[in-house]
Amino acid sequence: MSGPIAEAKQFLRDLFDAAVAAADPARCLPPFLPAPPRGKMVVVGAGKAAAAMARAVEKHWQGALGGLVVTRYGHGVACDQIEIVEAAHPVPDDAGLTAASRILELAQGLGADDLLLCLISGGGSSLLTLPAAGISLADKQAVNQALLRSGAAIGEMNCVRKHLSAIKGGRLAAAAAPAQVVTLLISDVPGDDPAVIASGPTVGDPTSFADAREILRRYDITPPETVRAHLAAAAVESPKIGDPRLVDCVTHLIAAPQASLIAAAQAAEAVGMQALILGDAIEGEAREVGLVHAGIAQACARHGHPAAPPLVLLSGGETTVTVRGKGRGGRNGEFALGLALALDGNERIFALAADTDGIDGSEDNAGVLVTPDTLARARRAGVDPMASLAGNDAYSLFAAVDDLVVTGPTLTNVNDFRAVLIL
Amino acid sequence: MSGPIAEAKQFLRDLFDAAVAAADPARCLPPFLPAPPRGKMVVVGAGKAAAAMARAVEKHWQGALGGLVVTRYGHGVACDQIEIVEAAHPVPDDAGLTAASRILELAQGLGADDLLLCLISGGGSSLLTLPAAGISLADKQAVNQALLRSGAAIGEMNCVRKHLSAIKGGRLAAAAAPAQVVTLLISDVPGDDPAVIASGPTVGDPTSFADAREILRRYDITPPETVRAHLAAAAVESPKIGDPRLVDCVTHLIAAPQASLIAAAQAAEAVGMQALILGDAIEGEAREVGLVHAGIAQACARHGHPAAPPLVLLSGGETTVTVRGKGRGGRNGEFALGLALALDGNERIFALAADTDGIDGSEDNAGVLVTPDTLARARRAGVDPMASLAGNDAYSLFAAVDDLVVTGPTLTNVNDFRAVLIL
Repeated sequence: MSGPIAEAKQFLRDLFDAAVAAADPARCLPPFLPAPPRGKMVVVGAGKAAAAMARAVEKHWQGALGGLVVTRYGHGVACDQIEIVEAAHPVPDDAGLTAASRILELAQGLGADDLLLCLISGGGSSLLTLPAAGISLADKQAVNQALLRSGAAIGEMNCVRKHLSAIKGGRLAAAAAPAQVVTLLISDVPGDDPAVIASGPTVGDPTSFADAREILRRYDITPPETVRAHLAAAAVESPKIGDPRLVDCVTHLIAAPQASLIAAAQAAEAVGMQALILGDAIEGEAREVGLVHAGIAQACARHGHPAAPPLVLLSGGETTVTVRGKGRGGRNGEFALGLALALDGNERIFALAADTDGIDGSEDNAGVLVTPDTLARARRAGVDPMASLAGNDAYSLFAAVDDLVVTGPTLTNVNDFRAVLIL
Repeated sequence: MSGPIAEAKQFLRDLFDAAVAAADPARCLPPFLPAPPRGKMVVVGAGKAAAAMARAVEKHWQGALGGLVVTRYGHGVACDQIEIVEAAHPVPDDAGLTAASRILELAQGLGADDLLLCLISGGGSSLLTLPAAGISLADKQAVNQALLRSGAAIGEMNCVRKHLSAIKGGRLAAAAAPAQVVTLLISDVPGDDPAVIASGPTVGDPTSFADAREILRRYDITPPETVRAHLAAAAVESPKIGDPRLVDCVTHLIAAPQASLIAAAQAAEAVGMQALILGDAIEGEAREVGLVHAGIAQACARHGHPAAPPLVLLSGGETTVTVRGKGRGGRNGEFALGLALALDGNERIFALAADTDGIDGSEDNAGVLVTPDTLARARRAGVDPMASLAGNDAYSLFAAVDDLVVTGPTLTNVNDFRAVLIL
């Protein structure tokens, strides 16, 4: 296949690859490695990218090191000196609990000349689960579920989590004192706040036990008795910003959605294509976000606003899918199908939507491509696009027209990536 | 009230007023008035702005004129020479049917020296209802309802409508031949296609009876027998583009969403504020469109993309609301509440969302204003913002914080207007 459609698809794929490459630990981590300490170098970490980050550390580190990181099942890579543990995500299992406990012990064993290098990425919150003494995992999860149902904001949920944990909310860094602590972060959250990513195990906590109790009251949540007693006792407060135990802590954001969008924009501009970044934290119901992107793209084509074609619109962030049907596909497929239906065959517009972690939902594809004839080709293949969307079955449609983007797990995660090309 | 918050609110209100003013027939119509004909000048028209358009014609026309326009109940204004009829919208009534019939007769009575001036605006489709001979209004509406439920595209619905009508799809202009026909349009539809607005009564029809039959087949719609027989007989095809009866027809778009957004952008730039138009036809579920606007605004605030603050983002088009609760409010209120919840008190962001026709849904307000403390003030007033959104009750929330935008009917309509100010 060749010609302008193939060229447009290849261009979009190149942009996606540039976005993922910018977040690849092998590339973005080495510049942030600290100087070797006089004492021991211990590496810990958690997240979907933790093993890939550990490997990048090993490859570029001069001297001895050891440690342990926990990543999701299937996200491990071979390391020589750092132990890689795989555990369950998003619901924690015993493997994760044991790993978190061992990570805390590693930190507690350090002295003033030692260095704790902490590798944190998306998914780290559930992979690094360690309930505070006296609280069972089941009780902690019951509170978590109640918070999720309550409509509490993410900041409020994190406050409660940090006060039910033995390792989050700066507790890991406090345990490592007086050692130096360097945290390398890959962000997949809006705002890239280090205190939010994986509930900030090495970052001073702006919240308190009193806040946590107030949040449960606000949302009328009656916690299990062990949790109530723990919050009431307020025995070991999380370390605050300015806590002397956190003096020797630094945090570097080594990859983030915006940085990957900028890398994609630069890749576009390198071949003479203008790029407009709409935002790195665009959220909402996937098909509706697709509609809005279509509206903006059509305004470019028709009026030259917000920018005149040819250009590519870029956006990141995590959409959601309200599942109503029994079909296959993730949020990027659903975004793309909503977009394609709204564009209705516009001959000047192409798109790619994919998850930078390489897996859109639970299928084998990272995402999908949209061309002007996507709907027409789907219908010729016997697929009704409206019915596909109604049935949450975008994967099947894009598979039928052979426009899946397949990468396999990328071992990093800066959330979703979308590119809409207007010629 | 004064200070920066009051200033920001006034600024946003000024932009809305500029957008509405740009679509006010008194202002946008006169430049498009044709030269007086040698014979008679007859004015006809339909739509929410039809009476205001007729008044603008009367005020600026040199010489005699007569005619009849039909507008929505409550949208009439006093005219001296042009008869104003009010009728039901969106479900047609007898007043509308009679008016449409009389309008067709007026056109049929014209000669080669005469001029038919046709004034069309949003709502004109249902206000200008005249079923083809042999079809009852009930049968026509049954097909219409079936099409709405079928998921057919707007172009497909219009094709069927045009072939069940005695006046649409260019039939009004054909009836006026050999007179000159000048159509002045106010658009509230994406793409501003004259063949789409009010189903194009004076515009050549690209579709045919065969197309209409095929569309009913495609969506598995079994029409009433009168409709089936009419479509099968295909007795009087709609005039096509290039039809000799349409040779002396011209159409001018005198107001449109994009033109109003540009007017608002110019008003912003006149006081030194950068403006970025995101699109004039942004569609989608209102609260989700609010979320996406919030994401773009926060990207501006945080990263300077797609543009660096201070700036105002502008958009138009019609969102939709899936009603689940029993609250009060239109789509602009719901958009704004979704936006406010996503912004969560961001101190640098303000917004206005309103319907340019002056009525957001069925309440007495055109729209609402969002300030950084909207949610906090609502909570102090005893209103839970999350519950308001869940109950489709945005009107009550914005009423409680005294941030309704009230204009009364503006007698024009270029769809919704949204402005998000990032300082």
